[in-house]
Amino acid sequence: MIVVLKPNISKKDEAAVLKEIKKLGYKPHVMRGVERTVVGAIGDERKNHTLETLTTFSQVETVMPVQKRYKLVSREAHKSNSRITVQGHEIGGKKVQIMAGPCSVESEKQLMTTAHAVKAAGATILRGGAFKPRTSPYEFQGLGEKGLKLLAKARKETGLGIITELLSEQQAEMVAEYSDILQIGARNAQNFQLLIAAAKTGRPVLLKRGLSMKIEEWLLAGEYILANENPNLMFCERGIRTFETYTRNTLDLSTIPIIKKESHCPIVIDPSQGAGRADLVAAMCKGALAMGADALLIEVHPNPAEALSDGAQQLTLEGFAKLMGELQPFIAAAGRE
Amino acid sequence: MIVVLKPNISKKDEAAVLKEIKKLGYKPHVMRGVERTVVGAIGDERKNHTLETLTTFSQVETVMPVQKRYKLVSREAHKSNSRITVQGHEIGGKKVQIMAGPCSVESEKQLMTTAHAVKAAGATILRGGAFKPRTSPYEFQGLGEKGLKLLAKARKETGLGIITELLSEQQAEMVAEYSDILQIGARNAQNFQLLIAAAKTGRPVLLKRGLSMKIEEWLLAGEYILANENPNLMFCERGIRTFETYTRNTLDLSTIPIIKKESHCPIVIDPSQGAGRADLVAAMCKGALAMGADALLIEVHPNPAEALSDGAQQLTLEGFAKLMGELQPFIAAAGRE
Amino acid sequence: MIVVLKPNISKKDEAAVLKEIKKLGYKPHVMRGVERTVVGAIGDERKNHTLETLTTFSQVETVMPVQKRYKLVSREAHKSNSRITVQGHEIGGKKVQIMAGPCSVESEKQLMTTAHAVKAAGATILRGGAFKPRTSPYEFQGLGEKGLKLLAKARKETGLGIITELLSEQQAEMVAEYSDILQIGARNAQNFQLLIAAAKTGRPVLLKRGLSMKIEEWLLAGEYILANENPNLMFCERGIRTFETYTRNTLDLSTIPIIKKESHCPIVIDPSQGAGRADLVAAMCKGALAMGADALLIEVHPNPAEALSDGAQQLTLEGFAKLMGELQPFIAAAGRE
Amino acid sequence: MIVVLKPNISKKDEAAVLKEIKKLGYKPHVMRGVERTVVGAIGDERKNHTLETLTTFSQVETVMPVQKRYKLVSREAHKSNSRITVQGHEIGGKKVQIMAGPCSVESEKQLMTTAHAVKAAGATILRGGAFKPRTSPYEFQGLGEKGLKLLAKARKETGLGIITELLSEQQAEMVAEYSDILQIGARNAQNFQLLIAAAKTGRPVLLKRGLSMKIEEWLLAGEYILANENPNLMFCERGIRTFETYTRNTLDLSTIPIIKKESHCPIVIDPSQGAGRADLVAAMCKGALAMGADALLIEVHPNPAEALSDGAQQLTLEGFAKLMGELQPFIAAAGRE
Repeated sequence: MIVVLKPNISKKDEAAVLKEIKKLGYKPHVMRGVERTVVGAIGDERKNHTLETLTTFSQVETVMPVQKRYKLVSREAHKSNSRITVQGHEIGGKKVQIMAGPCSVESEKQLMTTAHAVKAAGATILRGGAFKPRTSPYEFQGLGEKGLKLLAKARKETGLGIITELLSEQQAEMVAEYSDILQIGARNAQNFQLLIAAAKTGRPVLLKRGLSMKIEEWLLAGEYILANENPNLMFCERGIRTFETYTRNTLDLSTIPIIKKESHCPIVIDPSQGAGRADLVAAMCKGALAMGADALLIEVHPNPAEALSDGAQQLTLEGFAKLMGELQPFIAAAGRE
Repeated sequence: MIVVLKPNISKKDEAAVLKEIKKLGYKPHVMRGVERTVVGAIGDERKNHTLETLTTFSQVETVMPVQKRYKLVSREAHKSNSRITVQGHEIGGKKVQIMAGPCSVESEKQLMTTAHAVKAAGATILRGGAFKPRTSPYEFQGLGEKGLKLLAKARKETGLGIITELLSEQQAEMVAEYSDILQIGARNAQNFQLLIAAAKTGRPVLLKRGLSMKIEEWLLAGEYILANENPNLMFCERGIRTFETYTRNTLDLSTIPIIKKESHCPIVIDPSQGAGRADLVAAMCKGALAMGADALLIEVHPNPAEALSDGAQQLTLEGFAKLMGELQPFIAAAGRE
Repeated sequence: MIVVLKPNISKKDEAAVLKEIKKLGYKPHVMRGVERTVVGAIGDERKNHTLETLTTFSQVETVMPVQKRYKLVSREAHKSNSRITVQGHEIGGKKVQIMAGPCSVESEKQLMTTAHAVKAAGATILRGGAFKPRTSPYEFQGLGEKGLKLLAKARKETGLGIITELLSEQQAEMVAEYSDILQIGARNAQNFQLLIAAAKTGRPVLLKRGLSMKIEEWLLAGEYILANENPNLMFCERGIRTFETYTRNTLDLSTIPIIKKESHCPIVIDPSQGAGRADLVAAMCKGALAMGADALLIEVHPNPAEALSDGAQQLTLEGFAKLMGELQPFIAAAGRE
Repeated sequence: MIVVLKPNISKKDEAAVLKEIKKLGYKPHVMRGVERTVVGAIGDERKNHTLETLTTFSQVETVMPVQKRYKLVSREAHKSNSRITVQGHEIGGKKVQIMAGPCSVESEKQLMTTAHAVKAAGATILRGGAFKPRTSPYEFQGLGEKGLKLLAKARKETGLGIITELLSEQQAEMVAEYSDILQIGARNAQNFQLLIAAAKTGRPVLLKRGLSMKIEEWLLAGEYILANENPNLMFCERGIRTFETYTRNTLDLSTIPIIKKESHCPIVIDPSQGAGRADLVAAMCKGALAMGADALLIEVHPNPAEALSDGAQQLTLEGFAKLMGELQPFIAAAGRE
């Protein structure tokens, strides 16, 4: 860590800082600059006490960490891309995977219709929420286990892999039983107990970025999965919260090259949540593929106007099939399949 | 709800919208304006399907809700201020309550020293985290149940009420047993399963505002507590995430008059998290009291430089005692005790 | 406009609102809903007094505008795409234009080397700042008119069009004389006097999005150009300010489909400012092209490490040439040239 | 500056960085840590080339500045509080000054009525915009010089000092002639040409914080005033742009202790712009005074519902008089007059 001292402090005040640095397990290394003295504190920042607490000393101006805080998810720890296989489909390999389906599982008919349609159009993984985290307690909360059973049935009928959201530690085993990938939603992205419970099921985990999560925090939340001995983690960008109100969220596509650079884990883009508007989904998908996304997560519904959740951002079955055709040139341009 | 149609659409397209509005349970009321036609959809927005899904119709420009989405937490539902009594101390009444203590419970000595000191200075409620949600899995995660037992011991010795954070649904009963107020942290502010579990313990709940939570969403998260038959809810502003990096968060003190206006529940201010820097805490406290806060939640540690979490923002015991003296004139100016 | 009244107000209070609506030039139209009464105020919102001031009446809950505030820049006003021709190169047509060059003009050698190199790689327009808006008064402020003369010389030597930033109303004529496109920077995006001065020169104007500018505000700033009788406006997204610090700004690529939908003016993407890091520029360019950008604005410098401004985000000459090759498949996939 | 190298780089790559550091005018000082090598680059960061450009070297991980970039505005440069005298009233001294008046000057009657009323209630400085920066070109743009003349007349009649906004470099002399304080608005906070023109008039300057301006950037914009030999600068917080939409902006009251700590210049709070709602202004004023604001800038209008700009946030004359009474205890509690 780097500890910057205020200008013109006394020898005694400087000594007090050096003493505390040693006490906290680091070796101090003093550099006298033009205006300020800077102390390099040598030691492993991940194992030792943080020195940021030294800012409570009035003679300390700032403390700056030097090391990266994440380890297992980092590209340094694992040079090649991690690949995750789900029902025979590889995420993070050459082929781009398309995950599609309704926001919520609403009925057998709605789910089966959608499952067959997205499969026919080229999707390999079916999405659908059985437990829904809703802003208001008065909104539709999902079909629960009944929804999971419908997903399992759709898997059996179509051969699609299943991704569904996990909302509760207590349901981790149950949800894992019926699904192939556990989704951790944006609102739970720093619900560490849930992350640990998800990791322990052994199922692949898709970790959405929180609404106001810095990339470093997202990587560290992912670290909770790998540190709990589950290597099958994928990151999913779904838009961050900004001042802009035209779109529901601001989809941060720069996360694609950044995650590829910092981590070995696959990166998935969710343009439906990202835009919050069906009419922007196609352009978002094209951009995501061009930039190197490993998979897309797209909301599709037989009748969006009557969807029980997030209808405004869901594509129709026809809209999805048309989109799949339009995406081919961009997949090819990106050197993917 | 208000449905705004695009200019110059056909009669047929307009009729299709009106038909869907009826199908979804509302009575449409057409108003023809200068450029656009607007449809008022009359019906209870909290009971009926949302019409926002109509934006998937290409002839619809926007849909605007008219009703407020929250009910039980609203000032309309309960005109007078709600008061919550904890160990004989009333939150939301004339007396301002001070909650103080360490970020984390670290040891018996650290906790007892702090408890006696904050009590002597005038605090009535002791804070201290036994389960800590940490950005990195390699950081101190709290003492767990051992920490809860120390808190209970401090209550017995000092008579202070206890507030501590609840992190996991599965621990709700256990944490409730040892404490007087359950704190829901910012990262779990939309972890609805945790909110429901907390509500069901019957203990008063302090709900921190999420890092990027709109006030409406915060009120709706609070609605989960009241809708689960727990009337003892208080809101706690602890800073939101913005572009500014000088402070850890941006403490939004405007929440004090806003929560007072929109809701009957008490509002608590956490200046320690809000600023992330001990040297700004005093000014923040003064502002909060002047604006009408019902309580303050302040981090205090015998030796902040060696604190196991968030040392940079914790006051020393002396600093806290000094602050308590400085706050008196502002409490008086605000007409409180 | 839509005026929402509070529940249970008196007849007299309602009448006062209706009277004021009429006084301000609108025809009120009352709709009684389940909980609230809503008044549609019929009249042209762009010509009449806004009714948002009615929120100062205690019986009014909210006021919501219905009309779009922009007119001349809107797609409704001009169905087909506007095209702007600069030195024989069309922006907004089928061919994607590449604008490239150094952040600042630093010397004749630096500029000419860059100009020849970017032309050889396929750029058609040369960028370079002669007047630089710098966060600190102690940083390099640009070569001024000498820089403009170097740009004019580069145009003469290479045939490239010239884009350069206008900082001061007083210099509008001078800068227009030496350049083909006037750039309005993010920090001046709502400097309306500068916008008017730029419009009046008759030169095409590239309007960057302000750091925290909503899309509606950006379109309205563009409206200042068209309303001052200059039809040659292009919008340029260069990243917005968010909480994320990994990148300098968050490049909001959703602006491409949004501007295409709302406006007839071309949309240009600046990935250099958007990312603030040279290593992310290539991916950003690919995404922008896939999503339909009409042009890219890329910073290129013969020796970025010694650049006098923004070196961290500038590509080398070799890096730029390599990038141009990589972009071809994405241009083709987007159906452009 | 601190240059952090990537782990495991070659001796040759390290040497290349050290060579470039020397070339750019710094003396490198190597520290070998546990995982990474860190180079302290010793030299004056404000005089030398920035080393942030070194991030274009692939072996460099990050570069961190150590010095503060602002100088003349800093508390280090001037230990005691600066005081600015306007028409005999001192800003930054013991007495809190109240600046009040309409958002826009609309007519002689409107202005004179307001001027007399705010003076009677205790204000010492009259605000009023003659040139208005409006989001849309179709909105009221102010009375221009006629408005300035009305302000001058109000000064003559009432003895109040005058603060009004400067929008254009070309009008700096004219606006300075009629007013006592030049206001630089949020949208022009980094319009450096305007800042320089304002500084050169010699009039005191009130610099509003830009909508998404970091505190460091705000201080550096202020540095443009002092570096142009005008010592009479005051900072004005008026709310920043965040994701929250309940308020127009998020008033960041933490700027009061921060500006006091970092700078010697007075700090003024504008609660009207900050909240954008008249019903929140009183609480904001109380908080601001408790936290140590030197002055308040409050919008007051004889008939807000019919104001030509920003009516929703303006107080009535009665509302302002009532507020002035309510503020007294908070001024006293803060040890001010």
